[in-house]
Amino acid sequence: MYTVADYLLDRLKELGIDELFGVPGDYNLQFLDHITARDDLKWIGNANELNAAYMADGYARTKGISAFVTTFGVGELSAVNGLAGSYAENVPVIEIIGSPTTTVQKNKKLVHHTLGDGDFLRFEKMHKEVTAATTHLTFENAISEIDRVLNIAQNEKRPVYINLPIDIAEFEITKPNTPLNQPIKTLTASETILLDKLEEALQQAKNPVIIAGHEILSYHIEPQLNEFVQKFNLPITTLPLGKGAFNEADSHYIGTYTGAPTEETLRNRVDKADLVLLLGAKLTDSATSGFSFGFTDKQIISIGATEVSLYGEKYETVQLDRFISALTTLSFPKFTGEILPVKRLSALETKDVKLTQKRFWEIVEGFILQGDTLIGEQGTSFFGLTNVPLKKDMRFIGQPLWGSIGYTFPSTLGSQIANKDSRHLLFIGDGSLQLTVQEIGTAIREKLTPIVFVINNNGYTVEREIHGATEQYNNIPMWDYQKLPLVFGGTSQTVATFKVTTEIELVDVMKSARQDTERLQWIEVVMNQEDVPELLKKLAKTFAKQNS
Amino acid sequence: MYTVADYLLDRLKELGIDELFGVPGDYNLQFLDHITARDDLKWIGNANELNAAYMADGYARTKGISAFVTTFGVGELSAVNGLAGSYAENVPVIEIIGSPTTTVQKNKKLVHHTLGDGDFLRFEKMHKEVTAATTHLTFENAISEIDRVLNIAQNEKRPVYINLPIDIAEFEITKPNTPLNQPIKTLTASETILLDKLEEALQQAKNPVIIAGHEILSYHIEPQLNEFVQKFNLPITTLPLGKGAFNEADSHYIGTYTGAPTEETLRNRVDKADLVLLLGAKLTDSATSGFSFGFTDKQIISIGATEVSLYGEKYETVQLDRFISALTTLSFPKFTGEILPVKRLSALETKDVKLTQKRFWEIVEGFILQGDTLIGEQGTSFFGLTNVPLKKDMRFIGQPLWGSIGYTFPSTLGSQIANKDSRHLLFIGDGSLQLTVQEIGTAIREKLTPIVFVINNNGYTVEREIHGATEQYNNIPMWDYQKLPLVFGGTSQTVATFKVTTEIELVDVMKSARQDTERLQWIEVVMNQEDVPELLKKLAKTFAKQNS
Repeated sequence: MYTVADYLLDRLKELGIDELFGVPGDYNLQFLDHITARDDLKWIGNANELNAAYMADGYARTKGISAFVTTFGVGELSAVNGLAGSYAENVPVIEIIGSPTTTVQKNKKLVHHTLGDGDFLRFEKMHKEVTAATTHLTFENAISEIDRVLNIAQNEKRPVYINLPIDIAEFEITKPNTPLNQPIKTLTASETILLDKLEEALQQAKNPVIIAGHEILSYHIEPQLNEFVQKFNLPITTLPLGKGAFNEADSHYIGTYTGAPTEETLRNRVDKADLVLLLGAKLTDSATSGFSFGFTDKQIISIGATEVSLYGEKYETVQLDRFISALTTLSFPKFTGEILPVKRLSALETKDVKLTQKRFWEIVEGFILQGDTLIGEQGTSFFGLTNVPLKKDMRFIGQPLWGSIGYTFPSTLGSQIANKDSRHLLFIGDGSLQLTVQEIGTAIREKLTPIVFVINNNGYTVEREIHGATEQYNNIPMWDYQKLPLVFGGTSQTVATFKVTTEIELVDVMKSARQDTERLQWIEVVMNQEDVPELLKKLAKTFAKQNS
Repeated sequence: MYTVADYLLDRLKELGIDELFGVPGDYNLQFLDHITARDDLKWIGNANELNAAYMADGYARTKGISAFVTTFGVGELSAVNGLAGSYAENVPVIEIIGSPTTTVQKNKKLVHHTLGDGDFLRFEKMHKEVTAATTHLTFENAISEIDRVLNIAQNEKRPVYINLPIDIAEFEITKPNTPLNQPIKTLTASETILLDKLEEALQQAKNPVIIAGHEILSYHIEPQLNEFVQKFNLPITTLPLGKGAFNEADSHYIGTYTGAPTEETLRNRVDKADLVLLLGAKLTDSATSGFSFGFTDKQIISIGATEVSLYGEKYETVQLDRFISALTTLSFPKFTGEILPVKRLSALETKDVKLTQKRFWEIVEGFILQGDTLIGEQGTSFFGLTNVPLKKDMRFIGQPLWGSIGYTFPSTLGSQIANKDSRHLLFIGDGSLQLTVQEIGTAIREKLTPIVFVINNNGYTVEREIHGATEQYNNIPMWDYQKLPLVFGGTSQTVATFKVTTEIELVDVMKSARQDTERLQWIEVVMNQEDVPELLKKLAKTFAKQNS
C-alpha cells in the first residue's frame, strides 16, 4: 500500500535527504514506521526536540536541506526556537508534526498534548510567524500541499511546517510519477532590469568591493560566486554572518569585515569603496559590531533573497541562486587595482604557559586543515574564530543573527552526519554547552567523531563583557566537563577526553585528536573567565551602548 | 531611583513570589540587576529556558504563582512549550521577556535575536495563543499594564507574558501606594443562579458523587472543597488530572477514577451516580483512559474555571475560588448512603527478586509519608502513581493533559524551592529524564534534596506500549544514570547515588534515602522495558485505537 507518508518520504529523498531527526510521540509513531521500513532513510532519534531542530539545521546547512519529526503540541513547541533560527538565517528545514486524527480534531476532543480547549490550530498559527509556509494536510490536499511547501523550502531556503494527522499519513494514494518542480533558470523581467543596473554600476566603479553574506551559504552557490569573482578579478570580503561564503585562501579574499573593529587597512578598503556590493548579506548588529560599518547607502548595492536595494532604494527580491549564476554574463572591465592580502594571525612558538584567548585562536589557526568544518558557538568562540582565516574547502557554521546559545553542539552533529568526510571542529563555551548537552548520547550512539573544544571559563563570559561582569546571574554551576561523555554512554572505545590549561598541553592534545579519527574527541580547555577575544571586547561595548 | 523594574518586582513580591527563575541574556541583564540588588528576592539561573519554564510551573503549583525571565526571541521561544503546559493545566506563571530598547524596536534595527526583518512583534503574537494575556510595556502604559496582566494571572490561574524593553525597565516612576486589585468575594448574578440550580440538583440527588479535578489545585482551594464535602458527607473521587485535590486518607475519598480501567466497585459507584458533580475537572483522554467514563451528560454538572455545563448545556464560567467557597452555604440533606473505602495496594513482604512495575508501586505506597510531595512523570511513573493512595497533607504533581515529557524534573526542583519543608519524591523514566537532565546542576547548586527515582527501562516504554514495541525509534542511548549527578557538580557531600534491581535493594535504599535529608538522593531503578503498570496497559490500548 502506498500512502501519503510514503509520498512525503519519497519527496524528501528526491530533495536529497537521507537521514531524519526527531523525537517519537504517539501521534507520529505510525509515520515513523514508514521511515524505519525503508533502507534508504535513517531515523536518528534525539534527546529532545529543540536539539532535533538544531541538528536538522546543521544538516541542512551542509547538505542543502533537512527534515525532522515531532509530535503535536509539546514536541513542536519545544522545537520552535530552532525553527525560528533556521528562518532567521535562511536554512531550509522541514518540520513534520504528527497530529491527532482528522476525526479527533474535527470533533474537538479533549486529548493530550492540547490546551484542553478543542482548538487544534493554535500551534500552526504560531508557526506561521517563523516559517516560510505551513500546511495542514487533509485527504484532499495532501499531495499538492506537500509539493507546494517543499518547493517553497527549496526556493526560499527557509523552514516549512507540515501538520500531518496520523490518519492522513496512512491514507492510500497512487504513487505520482512527476518530479518536484524544477527551479526555473531564466531570469524574471525585474531580475533582468536589476542585472542591467548592476552592470552599469560595475562599469563605472573604480574600486568596488564585494561583501558576501550567509545567503550564499544557504543557496550553496559558493562556486557561482567564485566564478564571478575570478572572471572579473574582484576583491571580496565576507561578514561574520556569511563566513565561509568565499574561499579565504584565495588571493581575491581580503579578510572578514566586522565594522569598526576591522583591521585598519581592510576597513579603509571596504569603507572607501565606491561600490559596496552586498551579495546575500545582511548588515546586522552582530555582523557589523553594532552597525559600525563605515560606508553608507550611497555606496551600497545589496542583492539578496530577502532584500534588494540600490543606493538605499528598495527593489523586488531575486531568486538568489539563478541571479548569482547570471553574474558571469555581465560585461565590465576586469578589476586591475591592488587586492589586499589577508592578515594572518601570528604563529609564535607555543609555551608552557596558561592559555589565553589570544593565543588559543592563534594556535587554532595553525591546527585547522583544508576540508575541515569549523563551528563557532555564539560567544567567545564565534568571535575568536571570526578572524581566523579559513583554508580551502573549509566550511564554517555559526548563528550570529539568531544567536541562540547551545545551538552549535547539535548543529555540529547534524552537519557531521551530512558530511562524514569532513572533520568537524566545534568550539563551544561551558555556558552554551549546558543548554543542549544531552545530545552527547546521540553523538556516541551514532559514532560521530568531531573534535569538540569545550571552553571552560566559568560562566557566561560574553554576557560578563556586556554587563554585570561579576554578577551572580552570569555564573553557572561548575560541571566536570571532561567526564561528561562518559556518563552519556561513552567509553574509551568511543571517546577520548582531555583537559588542557596550557599552550603545550593544547598542542599535544590537538596532535593526538587529529590522528585519532575513530573516536569522538572531547577537549576541555580551561581559560580565564574575564579573558575574551579582541573583537568581542569591542562588540560588547557597542552592544552595551545599544541596550541603554 | 525607583523604576518600572522595581515596580514589577514589588508587585511580584506582593503576589508571594520570593524566587525568580530564568536565563540571562543581554536584553535582560540590567533588569536582573534589580533582582540581585534585593534581599527579598533570589535569582535562580537555569541551564536553559525550557527548564526555567518547567521549574516556574512547579513553583507555581506549590506556591500559588511564579515568574521567570528570558531574553527576547531565542529565550522566549525556547520556553514557550513550558508556558503552553502552564496554560493547558491552569498554572499561573508570569514570563518576563527582556527585549531591545524602544528605539531599536521603533527603528526596526537588524539586531541579534530577531528574524532580521525588523519585526519585533511576532513572538508576542505567538504567545497570545498560549497565555491568558500578553503585554508590551511602554513609557505610558507600564504601570497599568503590569497590574492588568498580573490580575489576570491571579484570577484565571494561567500564564501571562510581559515584554519589557530594557529602557522601559530603567524608566523612573513614582512608587505607587495602592495594592493590586483584591479578588471580589461576592458572587455575580450568573454565579448565584448557578448556585441555585446546583442546590436544586443536590436536593434531588439520591447517590451523588463529586469528581474533583486539577483546577482545585490551581486555585489552592482544597480546604474549601473539603469543608463542603465534610459538611454534607459527600463521597468524592478525583481524576488523575487533579490527583491530590482531596485528602485521599479521608473517609469521604473513594479512590481515583480513571474511566473503564477503574476497579469495578468504584467504577460502578461513579458511573451509576444520579449526579456526577465535576468540580474544576476536565474529562480528558488521559484522565479517563480515552473517554471511557461510564456516565453521560444527563448525569453531569460540571463547574470549572474554564467550563461550566449542566446536563450537557453550557453556562457562563465562574470564578472558581469564590464559587467553591460558597458551596457550604447550600441547603440540602446530608448524604447518608454508604461511602466506599479506598482500595489499598497489597503490602506483601519484599523479596530478593527482580523488581516489577507492580511490586515497585506497592513498595512505594509503603514508603510515602504524610507531608510528602509526589511527582509522577507522564509515562509509567504517572500511571503507576495514579492508583497509589496518598496520605494526608500530601501534594501530587503530574502533567497528564499537556503531557510534555521531561517536565517533571525541573518542576520538582521548582516545587521543592517553593516548599523546602516537604520531602519531594520524583518518579521519572530514562526517556523523559534525557530531555531536561542538565538541571541536575541547578539542583546541586541550590542544595536541593529531593528523592529522585530514575526508572531505567531502556527507552520510551509508554510509547512501546502504544505502538512499535520493538521499533528502533523507541530506543534511546543508554546512559550511566547512576553517575549523572557526579558530572553535573555533585560530590559525595551533596548527593547520594544508588542503583537497584531487586525489591530488597530498593527497600534498603529507600530507608537510607528517607533518613538522609541533607543530600540529593538519586536512585536508578532498573526495570524491564516491556513491564508497565496495569492502568497504562489499558490506556495505551485506547490511545492506539484513538490514533487509528
